[in-house]
Amino acid sequence: MTSADTVTTLQRIANLLRIDSIEATQASNSGHPTSCSSMAEIVSVLFFDVMHYDPKDPRNPAADRFVLSKGHCAPILYAAWAQAGAFPVADLKNLRKIDSDLEGHPTPRLNFIDVATGSLGQGLGFASGMAYAGKYFDKSDYRVYCVLGDGECSEGSVWESFAFASFYKLDNLCAIIDINRLGQSDPTPLQHDLETYRKRVDAFGWHPIIVNGQDVSQLLAAFKEASETKDKPTCILAKTFKGSGLKGIENELDWHGKPLGDKADELVANLRKLVNEESLVRPAIKKIVAKVPEIKKDKEIKLSTPPNYDGKKEIATRLAHDGDTKNSTYSIKFHDAFPKRFVECYIAEQNMVQVAIGIATRQRYTAFVHTFAAFLLRAADQIRMGAISFTRVKYVGSHAGVSIGEDGPSQMALEDFAFFRTVPHIVCFYPSDAVSAERAVELAANYDGAVYIRTSRPNFPILYKNDEVFQIGKAKIIVESSNDVCTIVGGGVTLHEAVKASEKLKAQGKAIRVIDAFTVKPIDRETILKSANATHNRIIVVEDHYLEGGLGEAVMAALADQADIKIIHLAVQEVARSGKSAELLSKYGIDAEHIVNAVEKLL
Amino acid sequence: MTSADTVTTLQRIANLLRIDSIEATQASNSGHPTSCSSMAEIVSVLFFDVMHYDPKDPRNPAADRFVLSKGHCAPILYAAWAQAGAFPVADLKNLRKIDSDLEGHPTPRLNFIDVATGSLGQGLGFASGMAYAGKYFDKSDYRVYCVLGDGECSEGSVWESFAFASFYKLDNLCAIIDINRLGQSDPTPLQHDLETYRKRVDAFGWHPIIVNGQDVSQLLAAFKEASETKDKPTCILAKTFKGSGLKGIENELDWHGKPLGDKADELVANLRKLVNEESLVRPAIKKIVAKVPEIKKDKEIKLSTPPNYDGKKEIATRLAHDGDTKNSTYSIKFHDAFPKRFVECYIAEQNMVQVAIGIATRQRYTAFVHTFAAFLLRAADQIRMGAISFTRVKYVGSHAGVSIGEDGPSQMALEDFAFFRTVPHIVCFYPSDAVSAERAVELAANYDGAVYIRTSRPNFPILYKNDEVFQIGKAKIIVESSNDVCTIVGGGVTLHEAVKASEKLKAQGKAIRVIDAFTVKPIDRETILKSANATHNRIIVVEDHYLEGGLGEAVMAALADQADIKIIHLAVQEVARSGKSAELLSKYGIDAEHIVNAVEKLL
Repeated sequence: MTSADTVTTLQRIANLLRIDSIEATQASNSGHPTSCSSMAEIVSVLFFDVMHYDPKDPRNPAADRFVLSKGHCAPILYAAWAQAGAFPVADLKNLRKIDSDLEGHPTPRLNFIDVATGSLGQGLGFASGMAYAGKYFDKSDYRVYCVLGDGECSEGSVWESFAFASFYKLDNLCAIIDINRLGQSDPTPLQHDLETYRKRVDAFGWHPIIVNGQDVSQLLAAFKEASETKDKPTCILAKTFKGSGLKGIENELDWHGKPLGDKADELVANLRKLVNEESLVRPAIKKIVAKVPEIKKDKEIKLSTPPNYDGKKEIATRLAHDGDTKNSTYSIKFHDAFPKRFVECYIAEQNMVQVAIGIATRQRYTAFVHTFAAFLLRAADQIRMGAISFTRVKYVGSHAGVSIGEDGPSQMALEDFAFFRTVPHIVCFYPSDAVSAERAVELAANYDGAVYIRTSRPNFPILYKNDEVFQIGKAKIIVESSNDVCTIVGGGVTLHEAVKASEKLKAQGKAIRVIDAFTVKPIDRETILKSANATHNRIIVVEDHYLEGGLGEAVMAALADQADIKIIHLAVQEVARSGKSAELLSKYGIDAEHIVNAVEKLL
Repeated sequence: MTSADTVTTLQRIANLLRIDSIEATQASNSGHPTSCSSMAEIVSVLFFDVMHYDPKDPRNPAADRFVLSKGHCAPILYAAWAQAGAFPVADLKNLRKIDSDLEGHPTPRLNFIDVATGSLGQGLGFASGMAYAGKYFDKSDYRVYCVLGDGECSEGSVWESFAFASFYKLDNLCAIIDINRLGQSDPTPLQHDLETYRKRVDAFGWHPIIVNGQDVSQLLAAFKEASETKDKPTCILAKTFKGSGLKGIENELDWHGKPLGDKADELVANLRKLVNEESLVRPAIKKIVAKVPEIKKDKEIKLSTPPNYDGKKEIATRLAHDGDTKNSTYSIKFHDAFPKRFVECYIAEQNMVQVAIGIATRQRYTAFVHTFAAFLLRAADQIRMGAISFTRVKYVGSHAGVSIGEDGPSQMALEDFAFFRTVPHIVCFYPSDAVSAERAVELAANYDGAVYIRTSRPNFPILYKNDEVFQIGKAKIIVESSNDVCTIVGGGVTLHEAVKASEKLKAQGKAIRVIDAFTVKPIDRETILKSANATHNRIIVVEDHYLEGGLGEAVMAALADQADIKIIHLAVQEVARSGKSAELLSKYGIDAEHIVNAVEKLL
């Protein structure tokens, strides 16, 4: 089928990509040329024979996708796109410069990158999300390719993704493991034991194909076999050599992550002979043939029906936003045509987040991720990388704080805001009743960026009218009078405790102001400052979160440049334990009684 | 070998444990009796025939270890210890009460629990650490048993541990997967496909044994086979039924995580007939036969040689604390007899942290964990659970902040303090030169709790004399005069920028005070407050971290109850990019020039 000419051409292009990788890393005086070299044939075959895409329209939704899980090999990926015509080859020498988007590891600042990689073991999950969207949402024929390093196969997240992709029969997904045997400082645990890789991949339900990864013909045959394999994803196990094609360096330790220095010139000269660029005729890039459904853009997403509570029944915010009620996360009309909107990811939070980030690429689908807030932390590094991908994924964490009660500390998120607040440009919602929870979901769906929504286990009274209007960064004053002695800022369960405290204090003739922060990031500096100024510059922040990094420090940070304001902070200060919700709120000093005491101490 | 009597007795005890689990969850009106029932025979056989331990001395270092990875089955674990004589059986009814340590999920508040579980997928890694310590540090014959649920086998961390344990030939480790087919709301992905489990476990290098997990004889034979299997850990794949032995509930969905309510009485009555407790003679618990080396306690750990820098060469803090120098983390004499002190965990941070937590149990070994600070976040949930285990593990994260330069944002930790500060009672060190880095390691080794040390990539000048004395929670004043116009608090690279800023300002006739925080938690409130008061109540905090949750908010929190102090905060506010270290410090507003500008604006 494949002509000898094609094979020769692809081999020459592989060497051209090696040269580009060496020269770029020489220019930046850092980077990973040897890890690039082992995958040169894989990249050449994929970009110049296998994949259907348009170098001038790299985010075309019908194009095949490529994810470089081993992100440190960015130079050869950039080289492939440059040689394919996406941008001038000469730009490759701007690698890692501050004014170039050709960063040390790929990020979507480049229009041909969908997801940031560089934290290992994440690419296959992103690719699985893309493949899931392709097969089940887009119902399209585009394919998804993902190159992994062998070292990163030690990451459990990789095996979560292997299990996920086979469970959902993602036969539009093809992983290639560049098994070059050598890690950063040591050989990898399996070195060149291809048979063990085959057994693992097979046991996880994939179709494994072992090839010599430096052999263009074998790679071409393997990609063909992959495209013809039904109901299973394919994993090509490519036996390669680190520094392949670089004499004196190939298959040697101590060449990880460094440019070739004074060896570069001679090695490049040798490779140039093999390439013979003057006579090289690059094959035409395969045209995009897949179709994808059109998605109407710029439509405001609205709740299918507005909140409708009679105010008599107490409702948990975890329920108000959840799939069990008609105005659920999932029943909101994100888009007109969602054939199947719920993706069960089982107990594998890292992959869940990766899949969501993958699904949300190319701005087509809005993905909500939902688990216990405590367990979202399992995917902290994925969420961190999601920020570098500028993802628009919405994270929903339930069962926050000690107020969950008897299940005990392992199930209580007490550090979620500390982590989520660090995500640049994220919005962190903390709804305190069912109405605001529904509106948080609505605002989240419309926000052009990542979102975190913290929900709670206990049932709360309804605080707001069904038609109350909420905005990102706008707090609500729940209780106020003209002679308030201080301001309490709360969220979730502690807001309700603050309301109770205000009632107790009122009975003693003391008035306090109570503020529902609603969003912890951005925090409503203006309302809180004005309120503080109106209440003797006294603020008490009370939260069902550890002392550090939550609502309390958000308020402190907002007012740090203000002299004169005194802030008292009530929060959980030790490892919590099992007990009834009310007992725990009392034990950890964040219930109405402790708020009353704090107010009295302030006066 | 095993008498019919033994089998019958163990079966009766299994049913007794079922009763205890049902009654405890009835009393607490919450919990997971059906998930307990599926593993009743496994627990009975382990605790009453297989394991060597002392119910009156549960942390005996020579005893076999047991880890309940499926921590929601705490009731049956508590029941086993109670029936074995560790505490009164009647106490089981205090399950989940606030004044009982019998929490919803196990924690080491109980003297028979080594590690907190309840975040799924972590137990096998803890157990692997214990088995590693047993085989390579203690060189002892005690064995480690770990029961996993089938649902949690979707967690990648489990497969990291499978790979680790076989790589190190931990034949003293035996995992049992309780394959009861049903998860929380759905069947598990593999349901009762035992053959696929077998293939996966086998491919990951373990010895798999398939048994009927409700059959005591098969379990006894399997544990015998496990103890005789050399150079490989064994995994017993126990086909079980959720709610086993509970008529009308067994193998039915919708019985996850709830007490049996009005069905309990009849089911317990039926089980009581099978147990016939009056005539039940409990087998003697197997005596501890293994020996372990004695470890001398209460010795202060010291650097093998004190810091020795001539002050001429700049040294990176990551290097000063690291294995490449003679005063390395690993060359400190933690204990006299460490035959092999370095455990290579490959690229699997979750398992690495789990292994460290396992190694550190029973107060025998001090474990330091080391990777890029950004990638420690991969194990955020493990570190969170480590806090609930009151672990003394020391986490060391290198390559913090934008100052790492060209590698780009995926490699930069900019949220590490925000996360680590939330760990209760942790000490967070941020050394700014080689001397303080060495002393931070020394203080960390001696601190009776978890520690985080943030180190940096760039080379820094030496700031301190070799004999400078450092203390936890004590900042150092680096630059001061009697007429300082404000105080700058910095750490790592920004401390050096602050020193540069002080020199620039001095040239303009302005004096500023510069403080090295040294520990970010606890923060030295006293020194900072005194310094602020002495410098017109003006503070500038500058840090190579995101705005949220780091040094800046630590300072704000320390001074929140002070009126009159104004704090300006310079930190990274967006997703960073590749570039030279100095370029990035400038771009993100945290270099000397920006400090100078901030000071000038303050005046």
